[in-house]
Amino acid sequence: MSEASPSKTAAGRFFEDFRLGETIRHATPRTLRDGDASLYSALYGSRFAPQSAESFARAIGYPASPIDDMLAFHVVFGKTVPDVSLNAIANLGYADCRFLKAVYPGDTLCATSEVIGLKENSNRQSGVVHVRSKGSNQRGEIVLDYVRWVMVRKRDPKSPAPEPKAPKLPEKVAVGDLGLACPPIDRAAFDPALSGSPRMFEDYVAGEKIDHVDGMTVEEAEHMIATRLYQNTAKVHFNQVSEGRGRFGRRLIYGGHVISLARALSFNGLANAFHIAAINGGRHVAPLFAGDTVFAWSQIVEAAGLPGRNDIGGLRLRTIATKDKPCADFPERQGEGYDPSVVLDLDYWALIPRRR
Amino acid sequence: MSEASPSKTAAGRFFEDFRLGETIRHATPRTLRDGDASLYSALYGSRFAPQSAESFARAIGYPASPIDDMLAFHVVFGKTVPDVSLNAIANLGYADCRFLKAVYPGDTLCATSEVIGLKENSNRQSGVVHVRSKGSNQRGEIVLDYVRWVMVRKRDPKSPAPEPKAPKLPEKVAVGDLGLACPPIDRAAFDPALSGSPRMFEDYVAGEKIDHVDGMTVEEAEHMIATRLYQNTAKVHFNQVSEGRGRFGRRLIYGGHVISLARALSFNGLANAFHIAAINGGRHVAPLFAGDTVFAWSQIVEAAGLPGRNDIGGLRLRTIATKDKPCADFPERQGEGYDPSVVLDLDYWALIPRRR
Amino acid sequence: MSEASPSKTAAGRFFEDFRLGETIRHATPRTLRDGDASLYSALYGSRFAPQSAESFARAIGYPASPIDDMLAFHVVFGKTVPDVSLNAIANLGYADCRFLKAVYPGDTLCATSEVIGLKENSNRQSGVVHVRSKGSNQRGEIVLDYVRWVMVRKRDPKSPAPEPKAPKLPEKVAVGDLGLACPPIDRAAFDPALSGSPRMFEDYVAGEKIDHVDGMTVEEAEHMIATRLYQNTAKVHFNQVSEGRGRFGRRLIYGGHVISLARALSFNGLANAFHIAAINGGRHVAPLFAGDTVFAWSQIVEAAGLPGRNDIGGLRLRTIATKDKPCADFPERQGEGYDPSVVLDLDYWALIPRRR
Repeated sequence: MSEASPSKTAAGRFFEDFRLGETIRHATPRTLRDGDASLYSALYGSRFAPQSAESFARAIGYPASPIDDMLAFHVVFGKTVPDVSLNAIANLGYADCRFLKAVYPGDTLCATSEVIGLKENSNRQSGVVHVRSKGSNQRGEIVLDYVRWVMVRKRDPKSPAPEPKAPKLPEKVAVGDLGLACPPIDRAAFDPALSGSPRMFEDYVAGEKIDHVDGMTVEEAEHMIATRLYQNTAKVHFNQVSEGRGRFGRRLIYGGHVISLARALSFNGLANAFHIAAINGGRHVAPLFAGDTVFAWSQIVEAAGLPGRNDIGGLRLRTIATKDKPCADFPERQGEGYDPSVVLDLDYWALIPRRR
Repeated sequence: MSEASPSKTAAGRFFEDFRLGETIRHATPRTLRDGDASLYSALYGSRFAPQSAESFARAIGYPASPIDDMLAFHVVFGKTVPDVSLNAIANLGYADCRFLKAVYPGDTLCATSEVIGLKENSNRQSGVVHVRSKGSNQRGEIVLDYVRWVMVRKRDPKSPAPEPKAPKLPEKVAVGDLGLACPPIDRAAFDPALSGSPRMFEDYVAGEKIDHVDGMTVEEAEHMIATRLYQNTAKVHFNQVSEGRGRFGRRLIYGGHVISLARALSFNGLANAFHIAAINGGRHVAPLFAGDTVFAWSQIVEAAGLPGRNDIGGLRLRTIATKDKPCADFPERQGEGYDPSVVLDLDYWALIPRRR
Repeated sequence: MSEASPSKTAAGRFFEDFRLGETIRHATPRTLRDGDASLYSALYGSRFAPQSAESFARAIGYPASPIDDMLAFHVVFGKTVPDVSLNAIANLGYADCRFLKAVYPGDTLCATSEVIGLKENSNRQSGVVHVRSKGSNQRGEIVLDYVRWVMVRKRDPKSPAPEPKAPKLPEKVAVGDLGLACPPIDRAAFDPALSGSPRMFEDYVAGEKIDHVDGMTVEEAEHMIATRLYQNTAKVHFNQVSEGRGRFGRRLIYGGHVISLARALSFNGLANAFHIAAINGGRHVAPLFAGDTVFAWSQIVEAAGLPGRNDIGGLRLRTIATKDKPCADFPERQGEGYDPSVVLDLDYWALIPRRR
């Protein structure tokens, strides 16, 4: 016998393969190690003190230096790709993303996704799938919980449409849901000379705009190393033969790579906003390619106290990343769309120590 | 005094420097760390569950998450390069490669090579050297044992030829020699949702062909980072000044990098074949260069039970990697040679859990 | 309110912001992890045995495999950049750099700089600032101490000039100051087959020149990954948009990256010179760019015994690195300047075991 067995390879789910209410257990648990923290640092140059130094983390109240929030996010996200978005036409958005538990080197992350929304498109070629994905650690504790929706191709346009269902999503994560992954912070130990800035919660006011000044050029090797680190298998990031024939003629950079770059750049202006507590929503406005240089700026949307916590406060931030354009004039929405330089429009909550 | 001392630098051995029966102890012991596991993951995107996750490895019977078999191989191989193949014209092949002991983060690998074959070529310019190389850990246990043969230049074409001797090599590693590096596997704990596939030993039959579908484009930075990680010093991989004047005009990618890429791609179709137990032989059919995209397919050559083990079985696999050509039509040998896209033809044994 | 807040972002110090005698505490403590050692290895291919292998390090007398000296240097140096050299026109030199304490995985490094020299330039546009920077570990022990001087722009050319002051700097670090970071070495355990060379202290004589033979081509992704690993934020290394409009039209490679490359290449000829004890001085003669290939050679300037130590001796080395030119003919100073291939002229002390 000498026969091809395409059935052994993962073809990914098509729209009609999703059932409302089903929970998909994703493959490949992944232990986050010291080496992953080092690689994350080398890929983005992040400088937030608790993630950078054991001594700083322990001094302020962490049991150990935590894994960067976005590294945990990317690893959980990566697991969902083979099951959720291998046949996706577009990653439409995410919402209600809450970081519930700090992740430390040695922790092993797994992921599941529950199908919470299905709606066929009017062209009957595709549909929108909403999933609530959860990352958990080796003790079964949920570390991360978020909703993502993608447009997925149908295998057979004639297959019947499911009852349309779209979940209700909060416009933002409520302040009561922030801070769960953050231990009580000893503010006196949060040394501003070491953390890189004297600016604390009280120094930021709603409406304020901050240009993060610095720029970072991205190379093919870098974004592929990062995306493989996350075990994200989406072929658009890796396969020049297929992408060379595609819409852009080249490999697309994983959107999460852009978020991590923007976050690392935001240190210059938001050095003490050390923890991402939630992502309210985000749009990858335009694709990023190797050779492009990423810049970023942020607006303080809201500065909010956290119920029961006088150690830290929440800054709701809108961070916009651009390509090949410094952000001194804060490029953003423009008419119906965006300034052509904009690649990312991210809405999230970061935590920062209070002064009093 | 102001004199050049070329004698202090390693010139490598020429054909006449090898003595039949001598054992060479290679330099630079190397501790494999958590960081090496992370880098290996980032360089290839490997997803085999026991190597990816502590919790999975421990659940099925490993004392810890093992270092990827090919990472251990590359590190041992790298040590042999300065002594064995610095003056090699060609790396002709390997055989009888057995993985004898699992390697864990914290283990330190050393290597020795015994000269087991010598045969001058008829042109008297070079000769073929066979070595049996062994990698051992800090306890002196052999973790890896394999034969490699290379064509090595003579320093002086007039130096006398040794008695020709070529070792007998097995066509394949016997099934009784497989599984030594694999602890008893608790099949009930080998969760197929986490490992990425329900296909176990019984699902594969001899003759079956599997297209691994995905492609991976390689960049200069990636293959050099990998090859340095293995402390492999062969200048063809690193030195554009010398290679720019050479046969190809550019840096060659280390053949082992192609093996690791093909192995990582093979996850899509062979997700549960978690351990390479032996390499029967392999040919680097054509060179790979930066910018090329690697694809792979595998044929099941043989599916064999292991004496005394009902937990796992052995799949003898022939994995073929191509460049810039998807493998849906299984490109391979063609007339006297190979389909021009083929870069690797590898024959190895992988272990996979049995269902019963 | 919707207002830009440039004040929250670091603009760096201008010449008039430095006060003689002040001590600057730099931001971002950094824990060096196993993963950083792995990345360093992957970026440079270093092969010095104590840094490569736990077993070798412990056998000769270290409590653990130490972090590469230059990795510790780069991390300390990186911390000083935002405060000292963000507005630097030129990095003029360093001197009196002493490695005082070995650094091990798990150690956290912090840095301070004392302003020890200030001298306005005659054009009143800029001035020269000397700082003595110190890196310390989590126990407050100084691990590294060095002087650096940079030319820094003035914010306002009309601001008054400080009293000119230039520190006295030693031409070289005294032999009595070497060896503090090196435990007593058990020479009998320093196995030359494992370390890669039989050449010990007694085999090197002043005046001797060694061509390190090998060459290493550098890619953009590699030097950026390295420089971010060190949290060095100098924009010339990262931002193609700004550098594209600059003097060279491209990103400059961090000078420390060249030092680490030259050091790794020097293994071929200086395999047993396992520890950098001091840097006497160094000049980055010309910039290095991606695509360039680095070669190196060294001259033994002096071979000196260390007071009270019969285990190790000091080699004062001058290592010259070139780009795109092999070093068989030892290119160096030439008339008023240098051979056009030269990029680095480094003067340092390395320690090497004594035979008797």
